[in-house]
Amino acid sequence: MLPTNFRANIRSGKHQTHTSGFCQNYVQANLVILPKKYAFDFLLFTMRNQKSCPVVEVMEAGQFQSKYAKDSDIRTDIPMYHVYEHGELVGKKMNIKEVWRDDFVSFLIGCSFTFESQLIRGGIPLRHIEENKNVAMYTTNIKTKKAGVFDGPMVVSMRPVPDSLVQKATEITSLFPKMHGGPVHIGDPEKIGIQDITKPDFGDFVGIKEGETPMFWACGVTPQAVAQHANIPFMITHSPGCMFVTDWKNEDYLHEG
Amino acid sequence: MLPTNFRANIRSGKHQTHTSGFCQNYVQANLVILPKKYAFDFLLFTMRNQKSCPVVEVMEAGQFQSKYAKDSDIRTDIPMYHVYEHGELVGKKMNIKEVWRDDFVSFLIGCSFTFESQLIRGGIPLRHIEENKNVAMYTTNIKTKKAGVFDGPMVVSMRPVPDSLVQKATEITSLFPKMHGGPVHIGDPEKIGIQDITKPDFGDFVGIKEGETPMFWACGVTPQAVAQHANIPFMITHSPGCMFVTDWKNEDYLHEG
Repeated sequence: MLPTNFRANIRSGKHQTHTSGFCQNYVQANLVILPKKYAFDFLLFTMRNQKSCPVVEVMEAGQFQSKYAKDSDIRTDIPMYHVYEHGELVGKKMNIKEVWRDDFVSFLIGCSFTFESQLIRGGIPLRHIEENKNVAMYTTNIKTKKAGVFDGPMVVSMRPVPDSLVQKATEITSLFPKMHGGPVHIGDPEKIGIQDITKPDFGDFVGIKEGETPMFWACGVTPQAVAQHANIPFMITHSPGCMFVTDWKNEDYLHEG
Repeated sequence: MLPTNFRANIRSGKHQTHTSGFCQNYVQANLVILPKKYAFDFLLFTMRNQKSCPVVEVMEAGQFQSKYAKDSDIRTDIPMYHVYEHGELVGKKMNIKEVWRDDFVSFLIGCSFTFESQLIRGGIPLRHIEENKNVAMYTTNIKTKKAGVFDGPMVVSMRPVPDSLVQKATEITSLFPKMHGGPVHIGDPEKIGIQDITKPDFGDFVGIKEGETPMFWACGVTPQAVAQHANIPFMITHSPGCMFVTDWKNEDYLHEG
């Protein structure tokens, strides 16, 4: 399906779940919307934390159409939004037209869904895609680098990978620094503060079989954990796994800059 | 001389001119100081214009010590500052302690002086250094990419290079994207809107001899031209050529990230 049709399905309410595995040849992005007052601190946060927050696009205040998605509307084209107030998740919304303000700055942040198609091509099986599930995500004890009011823990996505393919998966993803790059941790979940791997903070656990190693990548849900930790007064994000799908082909993005 | 001693000389008024050719093994940086209100627009401008504005460090609002320069003070450690109000250069100051405010955000931006030591090692003669002069800088007709209120022309530095070494100088500087990278133009100055090459907008003209080609690199003075073009209400910068000298060795910076 073309992204423009997929976004239309989301806008009309036909598609209401995660976007993992959909439009696999196109760049998907995490979303962070902040009042302009907090935009500088956050942009600086992304610069200092490029592994978790590789910026794809920053829209001007009030702008809601992405230059990477024809006729798109960032207020309607994501299946589910999270609204945070003072660090609390206060609402989940299917669109944010009613709460939109002219001083809102939208940030699109690279997503590991983009490198998944590269992993699959490289012969790395991805169970959450095979089972049409969302990827498992965890809040860790890895600290981000503070910037202004933004401070808090890194969120990671986890994929179980056959032991013999761990090195290959590392190599493939390391080639793509603009979508989280190589893993931040391989193996024992407890070493990064994950107490129970079977209970992700976001998304679905798909099991880790005998002969598989859990691999962890920095995740664009990190800003949500940071907003909670730092009591950011107001922020809107996508719901984890429910991404913004652009018209930008993975290959073109990968070879950009 | 060590940067810490050089900065002390600047602070005490012993060194009052440009810094070209001084502390050649250490990273020098352009300075832009803005009220936090404009910091987001400017940081976005640097992201969209990395060739002219490669960011070395962004300090938090009110912070005046660079993490790359021990015991430094950004308010005193530059030989000459420019103060802009509503697009006009309204003052030149030897220090800015009296006008400093807690909402000032300081940006350090990569400088071509850093790649000059690499050019010299590569056998490229640099006449402005041989003659202890400032490099010649020109406002061009090359447009920058707008971000918020920031919009305007690119400023370039010019070095005359022997024809046979133009390719080598291009190759050497292209290796250093974080300090302006390869040239933005080679040859005819009129093609980038420079009417009289003998009259630079900033710095000193050192002649272009028979058998030499003028080479132009994006320059960290660009924000000053942009501030003037866009009527930015308030901005402080270094005076062109009078840079902030860090303790960071060129080699370490070059191989960072």
